[in-house]
Amino acid sequence: MEIKVLKDILGANDAQALKNHSRLDGHGILAVNIMSSPGAGKTSMVIQTIERLKGKARIGVIEGDIASTVDADKVALTGVPVIQINTGGGCHLDANMTEKALDSLPLDKIDLLFVENVGNLICPAEFNLGEHKKVMLLSTPEGDDKPYKYPAMFSLTDVVLVNKIDLLPYLDFKLDAFEKVVKGLNPKVKIFPISCKTGEGLGAWLDWLTGELKIVTRQG
Amino acid sequence: MEIKVLKDILGANDAQALKNHSRLDGHGILAVNIMSSPGAGKTSMVIQTIERLKGKARIGVIEGDIASTVDADKVALTGVPVIQINTGGGCHLDANMTEKALDSLPLDKIDLLFVENVGNLICPAEFNLGEHKKVMLLSTPEGDDKPYKYPAMFSLTDVVLVNKIDLLPYLDFKLDAFEKVVKGLNPKVKIFPISCKTGEGLGAWLDWLTGELKIVTRQG
Repeated sequence: MEIKVLKDILGANDAQALKNHSRLDGHGILAVNIMSSPGAGKTSMVIQTIERLKGKARIGVIEGDIASTVDADKVALTGVPVIQINTGGGCHLDANMTEKALDSLPLDKIDLLFVENVGNLICPAEFNLGEHKKVMLLSTPEGDDKPYKYPAMFSLTDVVLVNKIDLLPYLDFKLDAFEKVVKGLNPKVKIFPISCKTGEGLGAWLDWLTGELKIVTRQG
Repeated sequence: MEIKVLKDILGANDAQALKNHSRLDGHGILAVNIMSSPGAGKTSMVIQTIERLKGKARIGVIEGDIASTVDADKVALTGVPVIQINTGGGCHLDANMTEKALDSLPLDKIDLLFVENVGNLICPAEFNLGEHKKVMLLSTPEGDDKPYKYPAMFSLTDVVLVNKIDLLPYLDFKLDAFEKVVKGLNPKVKIFPISCKTGEGLGAWLDWLTGELKIVTRQG
């Protein structure tokens, strides 16, 4: 019974996600769904990426949170268009919420759309929003055993950003072992170790992102 | 429509939670529901607490995870009885899962039961398991803004353990400001800053826990 309800919800969500995807394609926008645990550094990554792509790509942001506008307020300081979705308790964004946020964004003036999901390593993996790429962050203090415990998220994502590598000297996080396990679950995944605090490693992430941006722009 | 389904689920869950609660009381067991983001240190805290209460209280553990037995394997090394629940995708434990785990534990030989919930700051707050106390961990690398973004969890918990205080010198986490915001949401909450790595602060947490244990034992 519960499973049936869940299947109906997921089916309806996928239908709306397809509509969002076509709409984004119509505007030549690359949409990236960003997922992680609470506090892994999604907003910091978005802000660091915006600063580094200034003048190269026009960026828009959708911020998803249960409550508050803390993250949207931070992102707005960069000057890019940003919309906050408050789910009011819901543990993930869905395609309907995303559609409403798209209605409020200047889509003709955006090349790259970041959709920052609710902080949660579980449910966001199951709800497509219409994005082109899924990117997850795993911060080093969370530990290198997380792929075993949250396999869906690690299996479905296109990119894993291993954030807070500046803290590695103070932690027991084994980056090599972590990468091996993630590649075992998801052989095509790209893994970029980064620090949004020091900027280390962001170059490789930006190279990948601008490469994807060119592909979408050519198709659009 | 979706809300009705959720209400039915929560109502049925509360009924089962009451049964679990009575059953635990019948055995004189203090049950503690432990919640946090992935990687905040729930399992480390459980293991450190078990080591320090050896000979003073008989402990049992229920480990909740989407997949794997990583955490149960670690806890089992301490020698206490431990049961792993795999939710198979589900983002929280519920009272029915807890009942099944209780069936497999030697309840007459347990004074203190830790139920380690799935790593998630959102949904576990809504599902009572029949516990006597809710304890959440917030690890310092997650940032001091989390109460604004996950207000339900911080409002409902009896205790906040601020874990990984050994990392404070490398972070921008303001402990005083954090405590003030949490007390604003939840004036009765107990807050204990701890490090499961160095042992700092665990004494105050153990004092609170053994105090609660005496209260339940007297009632049982």
